[in-house]
Amino acid sequence: MSARDGSVSSGSGQLDPAELRSLDAHWRAANYLSVGQIYLMANPLLAEPLRPEHIKPRLLGHWGTSPGLNLVHTHLNRVIKARDLDALCVWGPGHGGPAVLANSWLDGTYAETYPGVSRDGAGMARLFRQFSFPGGVPSHVAPETPGSIHEGGELGYSLAHAYGAAFDNPELLVACVVGDGEAETGPLAASWHATKFLDPVYDGAVLPILHLNGYKIANPTLLARIPQDELDALLRGYGHNPIHVEGDDPEAVHQALAAAMDRSLDRIADIQRRARAEGEVDRPRWPVIVLRTPKGWTGPHDVDGLAVEGTWRAHQVPLSGVRENRDHLRQLEAWLRSYRPEELFDEAGRPRPEVLGCVPEGPRRLGASPHANGGLLLRELPMPSLERHAVHIDKPGGGLHEPTRVLGGLLEAVMEATAERRDFRVFGPDETDSNRLEALYEATGKAWQAETAGGDEHLARHGRVVEVLSEHLCQGWLEGYLLTGRHGLFSSYEAFAHIVDSMVNQHIKWLKTARGLPWRRPIASLNYLLTSHVWRQDHNGFSHQDPGFVDHVLNKSPEVVRVYLPPDANTLLAVADHALRSRDHVNVIVAGKQPCFDWLSLHDAQAHCARGAGVWGWAGTEVSSRDPDVVLACAGDVPTQETLAAADLLRRHLPELAVRVVNVVDMARLLPPGEHPHGMPDFEYDALFTRDKPVIFAYHGYPWLIHRLGYRRAGHPNLHVRGYKEEGSTTTPFDMVVRNDLDRYRLVMDVVDRVPGLAVHAVALRQEMADARSRHHAWIREHGTDLPEVAEWTWTG
Amino acid sequence: MSARDGSVSSGSGQLDPAELRSLDAHWRAANYLSVGQIYLMANPLLAEPLRPEHIKPRLLGHWGTSPGLNLVHTHLNRVIKARDLDALCVWGPGHGGPAVLANSWLDGTYAETYPGVSRDGAGMARLFRQFSFPGGVPSHVAPETPGSIHEGGELGYSLAHAYGAAFDNPELLVACVVGDGEAETGPLAASWHATKFLDPVYDGAVLPILHLNGYKIANPTLLARIPQDELDALLRGYGHNPIHVEGDDPEAVHQALAAAMDRSLDRIADIQRRARAEGEVDRPRWPVIVLRTPKGWTGPHDVDGLAVEGTWRAHQVPLSGVRENRDHLRQLEAWLRSYRPEELFDEAGRPRPEVLGCVPEGPRRLGASPHANGGLLLRELPMPSLERHAVHIDKPGGGLHEPTRVLGGLLEAVMEATAERRDFRVFGPDETDSNRLEALYEATGKAWQAETAGGDEHLARHGRVVEVLSEHLCQGWLEGYLLTGRHGLFSSYEAFAHIVDSMVNQHIKWLKTARGLPWRRPIASLNYLLTSHVWRQDHNGFSHQDPGFVDHVLNKSPEVVRVYLPPDANTLLAVADHALRSRDHVNVIVAGKQPCFDWLSLHDAQAHCARGAGVWGWAGTEVSSRDPDVVLACAGDVPTQETLAAADLLRRHLPELAVRVVNVVDMARLLPPGEHPHGMPDFEYDALFTRDKPVIFAYHGYPWLIHRLGYRRAGHPNLHVRGYKEEGSTTTPFDMVVRNDLDRYRLVMDVVDRVPGLAVHAVALRQEMADARSRHHAWIREHGTDLPEVAEWTWTG
Repeated sequence: MSARDGSVSSGSGQLDPAELRSLDAHWRAANYLSVGQIYLMANPLLAEPLRPEHIKPRLLGHWGTSPGLNLVHTHLNRVIKARDLDALCVWGPGHGGPAVLANSWLDGTYAETYPGVSRDGAGMARLFRQFSFPGGVPSHVAPETPGSIHEGGELGYSLAHAYGAAFDNPELLVACVVGDGEAETGPLAASWHATKFLDPVYDGAVLPILHLNGYKIANPTLLARIPQDELDALLRGYGHNPIHVEGDDPEAVHQALAAAMDRSLDRIADIQRRARAEGEVDRPRWPVIVLRTPKGWTGPHDVDGLAVEGTWRAHQVPLSGVRENRDHLRQLEAWLRSYRPEELFDEAGRPRPEVLGCVPEGPRRLGASPHANGGLLLRELPMPSLERHAVHIDKPGGGLHEPTRVLGGLLEAVMEATAERRDFRVFGPDETDSNRLEALYEATGKAWQAETAGGDEHLARHGRVVEVLSEHLCQGWLEGYLLTGRHGLFSSYEAFAHIVDSMVNQHIKWLKTARGLPWRRPIASLNYLLTSHVWRQDHNGFSHQDPGFVDHVLNKSPEVVRVYLPPDANTLLAVADHALRSRDHVNVIVAGKQPCFDWLSLHDAQAHCARGAGVWGWAGTEVSSRDPDVVLACAGDVPTQETLAAADLLRRHLPELAVRVVNVVDMARLLPPGEHPHGMPDFEYDALFTRDKPVIFAYHGYPWLIHRLGYRRAGHPNLHVRGYKEEGSTTTPFDMVVRNDLDRYRLVMDVVDRVPGLAVHAVALRQEMADARSRHHAWIREHGTDLPEVAEWTWTG
Repeated sequence: MSARDGSVSSGSGQLDPAELRSLDAHWRAANYLSVGQIYLMANPLLAEPLRPEHIKPRLLGHWGTSPGLNLVHTHLNRVIKARDLDALCVWGPGHGGPAVLANSWLDGTYAETYPGVSRDGAGMARLFRQFSFPGGVPSHVAPETPGSIHEGGELGYSLAHAYGAAFDNPELLVACVVGDGEAETGPLAASWHATKFLDPVYDGAVLPILHLNGYKIANPTLLARIPQDELDALLRGYGHNPIHVEGDDPEAVHQALAAAMDRSLDRIADIQRRARAEGEVDRPRWPVIVLRTPKGWTGPHDVDGLAVEGTWRAHQVPLSGVRENRDHLRQLEAWLRSYRPEELFDEAGRPRPEVLGCVPEGPRRLGASPHANGGLLLRELPMPSLERHAVHIDKPGGGLHEPTRVLGGLLEAVMEATAERRDFRVFGPDETDSNRLEALYEATGKAWQAETAGGDEHLARHGRVVEVLSEHLCQGWLEGYLLTGRHGLFSSYEAFAHIVDSMVNQHIKWLKTARGLPWRRPIASLNYLLTSHVWRQDHNGFSHQDPGFVDHVLNKSPEVVRVYLPPDANTLLAVADHALRSRDHVNVIVAGKQPCFDWLSLHDAQAHCARGAGVWGWAGTEVSSRDPDVVLACAGDVPTQETLAAADLLRRHLPELAVRVVNVVDMARLLPPGEHPHGMPDFEYDALFTRDKPVIFAYHGYPWLIHRLGYRRAGHPNLHVRGYKEEGSTTTPFDMVVRNDLDRYRLVMDVVDRVPGLAVHAVALRQEMADARSRHHAWIREHGTDLPEVAEWTWTG
């Protein structure tokens, strides 16, 4: 045992015998309750000797990490109570669900949240039975768990969530247990660098507790198997000041951990005081606790002759044959009794006062933190009037704007309006400028605590634009920020949103579950702005071309996911306004940053976005008395432009053809109502797209998505979709659409090919279109630019 | 300037004046060629004053990183030549394409690969014009670039690729330039820990060169803005021994970098000698070079009054208005002439001898390394006879095996057969045991160079199973291993394959492009075994349930992607055998690890997998003279079991109903032939699924994937798909299928609902099925286990 740190005096935080006894009792109680959840479906207090029928038929859960989590929770209780802290804990090893549930039952929040699971013997029986049991509660920390904002099933995001929670929460302490397995992941490895973004003035503190229990499922962990000086150097290299606690003697570890916690909190208080009261601007070296205890500590030392405690064998269920194997049953009973439950719980199963000695009161309890139920704290975002930011339209296509630059004005206004409240942030991987949102810097700067130099622009110690070249950190920080009741937006290159595919999966799963829990209040949606999209990778080419994030998200729970493809600046404003006001959604907005024709006035844009899809009558040539001959549908800015150019060609060359132009902004509108809350009923779909006319659909992404959304519609056999099909390079904008057969000429050819009778009637037009494509191919190879007729095209309808 | 390292003597690696002049000439030449590529479409040698028409109409590319890459390349040339090294370089800042192309043109490999781009003035003109020009070459390092295995467009994977290349390549030096932007990403941050996996005996060496040029697109970088002692601690914490080089005076930096390279290579040689000759087993502290030079070094110092060199403004194209702005044009000419091209190239545009003084010969040239065209080195994998590993089948469903455990035997045999060659590895995030592949440990151990302790199992300094809790590292290492001509497999929990969505995107893009380049030889496929799948997350629940990786991959280039869902142990063997023999593909194999009925003999399995989809006549009740009444289709092990159980119920309850059972292994078979090389023609699809009978398709993943694959088929309106729809928790296997409406009872109800006339005829059966579902719900809440009739079900057909 040791609490190794040059400046930790062994006296600091020293526990007196009564306090030590009380802390140990709490820890033992939590351990007892953890084991009980994994194994028992009856006889929770061991009122009688254990019999096979008391044991669950399926033993599921993770013991290995639980005693460590219980230890940390116990000691957090102590310091929260002693210092009256407003604290939250992120449990990285979320598979240690039994531990977090045990503590929440002990601190009383579980019974307050779920009255059926009372803090007594009857409640304990329910707590045990429900765990990892069909119809019960998940084996991991989950939305169902009071006090949690982090599921921890997919490892890697705990520390990012913790920092996200701490941003703009100056009075909050966010403890974060980082498992040594999780610490091997990329996102976690990068997360340590958040020390360069945490503002000691306006942000709260994060106290990482790196828990080295030495093993993963079947392997040792890296950080537990490097010399201590190497680990120490690593953490110092990340900008931390480490304090080491190590041991397997409970009493000694209690003393050392208490001292380490006190020392850490003293340092944090000192850092914050110096920054806030004394105006110190040097980046602080925040403390980190390295806690080294055995995996499955206090569990069976060995089973069937094989070492378990302190090894990878303690990861899940150390005694696996309890129902069938009498030795295992005996061993389990001895294990449970080793915690001396009779000292911990009274006859009615209520925790004895000594056990609860360390537990804080009311909302100070970790299980009851309002920050972990962020909707409780959420305030409406002060959204400015869109009129101030909208683009003026004389006629469709009469002007050109960069949609994201226009959006930047709106975001600036929101940033400005939240200057005092500080509950809105914009995250991005070094692309806020590149994505043309730089108006934001009129209202705030870029968060930065590291060194500065002459040429820097917009860096600011208290900035609320957060840029780091890690999509994982942007996503994790934003999630933590939203889950604790704030608002935000993540702006990314479209292709690289895939970097966080698995993270958004987990966030959607969280939201889906949370929506079903009445006690969880709605939180602000997670808003993506995907820009620098597939069609305009002029500098970067093939590797930067991928529109599939939309497909990925649309596989997930329809009550959560929303996908918008605004075709111009004003529709982007309307969609962003809606997304920023919404709750419990994941909104994906795909919009270009390059100059784009302005099609709709703000008024029309708002109406169009509210409908999600509609006919652009001004763009077509149909007469109202009958169905059109063909529908040109489009979604996305570039496809909309090509569609309108095609409509333009058709109007000039085939004026008698009745063409309808339909633009889709809200992709889920294409689904049937049973598949998505935004899905449109058949009568509406049929009225828009017809039941039997050819539909040429120019779509921003992979074309089959449109089929996947629309396959149940009557008109589906007539639906012909053009989109991105993995053809790309560094080339011109128009060459990109030609390579993928989404260009205006190809769309006209599609019309000629698919409208009955037209193939014969319009032979010359079809040839002219094919010639234009040939002309393009020749021109571009010689000049490296787009055909003048394309580059100079404007809508003249 | 400095080469700071306690042990670097300034004399070591000191360059004599002639060598210094020659190196500097090479560097200047590479810089000149880099600038030329970005700007010029004519007048490459500045034979006349620059005029606007010499300038490309679209200026695209990245200058900022290029001089640094050129510097490193120049100095790598020197040491390769001096030491006769077998070397490869991974260029992390892949957007510095101009630099790598320039060097490859200089070392002659470019002209050997593309004879049209000769090493003379005419070739230089082509080199310049083609860069980032329509129909030319990409702006990034790419498959088209000789000597490259790493595109670098999506940042984060360079160091993982480098380690993958070094594994089992004992004579190879892999230099790896890590950009300081890239260094902020999670995957890169985790990659440094590869020091605990690199075997100094059987692996080659990796020399990371952390290039701090200080800025990203618009921000400073983190690692350039922490004190040097903090950065030093970080790298030491990762297990490295850093050597720092810093400066902006070319001559001094040449001297320092030469010394640092010599020192690094001396150390590497020493480490390898001690491990190989002296049997030293302590983990070595490998060198890393920290190179700090200005961004856009030697470029315009300022432009329009704003500082450019040494700032983020140097990132892309420092002078952006060259065609229109005479000052910019003059500045560009001065910039180009500052390299003194007349000293570097003769009148014919050929590099002068002094420029080429450092360039190695033949395959020693970085542009010509056979490791960067791995197919050149690839050997057929010695695949064992499947008979030895197959499961014996008396009758369908007569036995139960864990498919992945059976596969483990096959993999063990491959591992054994490659014990000397060492060109096969299995990668996984701590799940090789959990995924029941542990037979592998009969043939090899788990690679591990960190500390060991008593309870460890199967750790081995020379092991070829590689486990780390980072899907990013597993993927990156395997990619590097395959790209350099070896074989491997990545075994992962199905849900967490999404962690590498964006990485597999990039690998597929690489393969698609490489397949179109005749000089690139085919490499071994990237094989995924996705197990611990959505239906069997008994311990972990909702967060571990995601079958969408298949959807993600099927969006990508059809010539590359393959998806297999073998329904039992022998089909898994057949599929794995095929995948391991294949080339230039990404094979996704989804297979369970839980006991699963054995349906097919090896012979039948091989035939079935070769077809990819087929009727299981023994499972149905159709008579050959007519179409069946209904088709029960299935893909995946759990859906297959439920389908057969449904067929069983139908046989017993509706013996007169003609039921056909179709199993699909190769998902791409469902596509039309025009959409995928494995797509089946309509006549075959219609023969299998009928054109007009109801098809009830039980699918492993998201049900709409089947519609997306099959929407063009005549029978599509009759296709009804069941699959996973984001309903899950920690519960029993059967409850999972009930929650998602994929269970046998539901499938029978679907049949009753969809076969014309059956709704009336089979009212009682439908009610019986609904009752069984109710019985399930009641039973599971009480007992926590599956209904006995389900748990004990076996096929009796």
